[in-house]
Amino acid sequence: MRSFHDSVSDFIAGTDNPRLYLERCLEHMAAREPDIKAFVVMDAAAARAAADASTARYRDGRPLSLVDGMPFAVKDLFKTADFPTELNSPLLKGNRHALDAAHVYALRQGGAVLLGKTTLPELGSGRPAATRNPFDLARSPGGSSSGTAAAVGAAMVPMAIGNQGRGSILRPSSFCGIVALKPTFGALHSGGMLWRSPSYSVLGVHAGNTTDVWRTAWRIATIVGGDPGQPGLYGEPDLKARKPTRLIRLDTAGWAITETPLQEKFEAFLRDLQDRDVDIVSRHDNPDIEAFEAALTTIPDFQPDLAAWEIKWPALLIRDMGRDQINKRLVERLETGETMSLDDYRQSLEALKKLRTTFAAIKGRADAYITLSTPTPPPIGTSTGDSVFGDPSSCLEAPAWNLPLLESAGLPMGIQLLGHPHDDYALGCQGRWMMETFLSRG
Amino acid sequence: MRSFHDSVSDFIAGTDNPRLYLERCLEHMAAREPDIKAFVVMDAAAARAAADASTARYRDGRPLSLVDGMPFAVKDLFKTADFPTELNSPLLKGNRHALDAAHVYALRQGGAVLLGKTTLPELGSGRPAATRNPFDLARSPGGSSSGTAAAVGAAMVPMAIGNQGRGSILRPSSFCGIVALKPTFGALHSGGMLWRSPSYSVLGVHAGNTTDVWRTAWRIATIVGGDPGQPGLYGEPDLKARKPTRLIRLDTAGWAITETPLQEKFEAFLRDLQDRDVDIVSRHDNPDIEAFEAALTTIPDFQPDLAAWEIKWPALLIRDMGRDQINKRLVERLETGETMSLDDYRQSLEALKKLRTTFAAIKGRADAYITLSTPTPPPIGTSTGDSVFGDPSSCLEAPAWNLPLLESAGLPMGIQLLGHPHDDYALGCQGRWMMETFLSRG
Repeated sequence: MRSFHDSVSDFIAGTDNPRLYLERCLEHMAAREPDIKAFVVMDAAAARAAADASTARYRDGRPLSLVDGMPFAVKDLFKTADFPTELNSPLLKGNRHALDAAHVYALRQGGAVLLGKTTLPELGSGRPAATRNPFDLARSPGGSSSGTAAAVGAAMVPMAIGNQGRGSILRPSSFCGIVALKPTFGALHSGGMLWRSPSYSVLGVHAGNTTDVWRTAWRIATIVGGDPGQPGLYGEPDLKARKPTRLIRLDTAGWAITETPLQEKFEAFLRDLQDRDVDIVSRHDNPDIEAFEAALTTIPDFQPDLAAWEIKWPALLIRDMGRDQINKRLVERLETGETMSLDDYRQSLEALKKLRTTFAAIKGRADAYITLSTPTPPPIGTSTGDSVFGDPSSCLEAPAWNLPLLESAGLPMGIQLLGHPHDDYALGCQGRWMMETFLSRG
Repeated sequence: MRSFHDSVSDFIAGTDNPRLYLERCLEHMAAREPDIKAFVVMDAAAARAAADASTARYRDGRPLSLVDGMPFAVKDLFKTADFPTELNSPLLKGNRHALDAAHVYALRQGGAVLLGKTTLPELGSGRPAATRNPFDLARSPGGSSSGTAAAVGAAMVPMAIGNQGRGSILRPSSFCGIVALKPTFGALHSGGMLWRSPSYSVLGVHAGNTTDVWRTAWRIATIVGGDPGQPGLYGEPDLKARKPTRLIRLDTAGWAITETPLQEKFEAFLRDLQDRDVDIVSRHDNPDIEAFEAALTTIPDFQPDLAAWEIKWPALLIRDMGRDQINKRLVERLETGETMSLDDYRQSLEALKKLRTTFAAIKGRADAYITLSTPTPPPIGTSTGDSVFGDPSSCLEAPAWNLPLLESAGLPMGIQLLGHPHDDYALGCQGRWMMETFLSRG
């Protein structure tokens, strides 16, 4: 399927229109959704009506925005007025809200077409969703934005919204072969999440290409801003391809558990960058980078406690609605928070701050950081895989893009470009250059 | 009515119990609520059942917490599972949520008894509530925590929860003659507010005395913490009366519009403090304090834009549900945000940061800051009065206590003790000393 932004030129020329675009999405959905199971709920009739209205606006030469007519789906932990918000838990069955989430408001008010809501593991991290990987139905699409990434990967929608508290944007987008932006903390208004853990979690955009991701993010930021109190997303309305001069290669805790064939693909990719005069530096070149790499390995010491405390509300309320209706291991994790004190939490917060300080100390030494997005191929079965490569950007409140530039044994595998807070646009421009330069490689 | 914390000793001794305490509240309510109109909705039967359960716990010698059996009410912009959340707007009539707000969870789980929800102006700042001042029915209780403060002022509940984005805790507590804590930003978990503007807004506690306020705040902080990512409330479970050594007297923009009799009462109070060897310094003693006072006058330059941008979501969604069903002046304020750009918002944020820097520069020069909470007596009619004395603590993310230590022409009038972020407990201890020392004065 063509990118949405390419189709927009055809909408304007009158050779295509948003209704036809939507029908192509629905055809893909008819063909693939029975196997993939990315959606929890959808409303084709409402989407057709919205697409028709958009078609009329293009015909009149008055589209509302760069996302007018764009079909999209939303992870089922964001509230929408049209659909319930159930988080894949029987305890929230039929749970309804009167108001759309902030990003849904911004997108619909710009003419984007909400098609439905996508799956996630129970309450974000319990029993996995039934969703399958579009590249191999025996495999997982990753999580927790499982349906979000699978729906885009299977071309059922050109764009979908997920969120990340650990690796929930980077991991599924890597497994489903799509582009995604996990933005700087607070850069996109996350209002309307029913469940948010931990405090540095963000809303993120999944699409087939960098431009569709960026235009979506830009639309959200310019209409509802970032999270209140935050300066929001910086940049321009469109990305310009830009070759980086120097990248810092990060191992993170993920490298040690990355399967050898994937390590080799990544090393080969770095050599290709070097062949194009991109300077690659690493922990072996600089003691400050080495110190930062060492600091990254402390994440497992504080992240679980931090998340368990912060989700006490509303998690314990939901548990009290029916403890036996929640995955047992998830209940155990949630209940860790119940045994913690506020002082325990403060200690975890201090450890987090220390890590951020180490990161700030290496700012300005390169255009971006480069690493992988996942340490394995998509797992066979229901496990959503390891989120280890997502933790750094989450804990650091840092922007990260997944770029579907590698593959291994026919399965997609993402390159991660990570930066300092507010580098979202600069990273996107480099990502666009990489996509244009390397997309055809194996 | 006796304070709740004094009654707790009687509960333990078996000479009183939470059900009897609740019945006394209900008697006050039967006598006064028809005139005062503080409540939107209440459920006496459910409260009685909860009070009976609490009574049984005390009888068994096993109360759940220091707030077990404490009846309370919640401003109707916090979500609760038992009642709708309507914000005094016909557009949100019957709007229900499955989960209690974070503080409601923490309090109920400690045995506190939710009696009902209290009034506020339409959507926080439109058409005023019908609520009347318990000291003079011709007058307003202030806003926006109108019913919250009036319910406590009329002894219908010993404690109630409100929130403040400008002066919505300090103003009504001053007008209704009660104690209130507007805590440090993020010190108490504010999860479950339907409408939150601006980003530095907080949940706050209203009660008849400093101990009931503090025990409530402490309970919330120790169970659900502060806002995720924030270190939460610091201190001890109970306040100790402590005389301050030095206070900085602040005029703020409020002094110039404070009515002369109130100015005189305040000056007399400062002299009483000096008679007890409390050193009072002011803008006339120090150029840094003068610079801070000057900085405070910039608040009206950025605060309205900041609030208008931050409330775009969900305010514009609610407006779109029925523009003609919202107060016209409120619609105009809300729509200011629609004409603003993200860059405009960033400029307001920068101005806010500048003010905070000026405040940080005078940290450590005194035990606390002292000023008034309101510049006039409670207004006759429906106007909720001027929020000018609330703006500094809000913008500065600073803790502030209202202490009902003054009166003028038979009407209550609050002293405000303000501090630097995380001084909540230190201020409370000084507030307790002042209450014990001066409460009997006219």
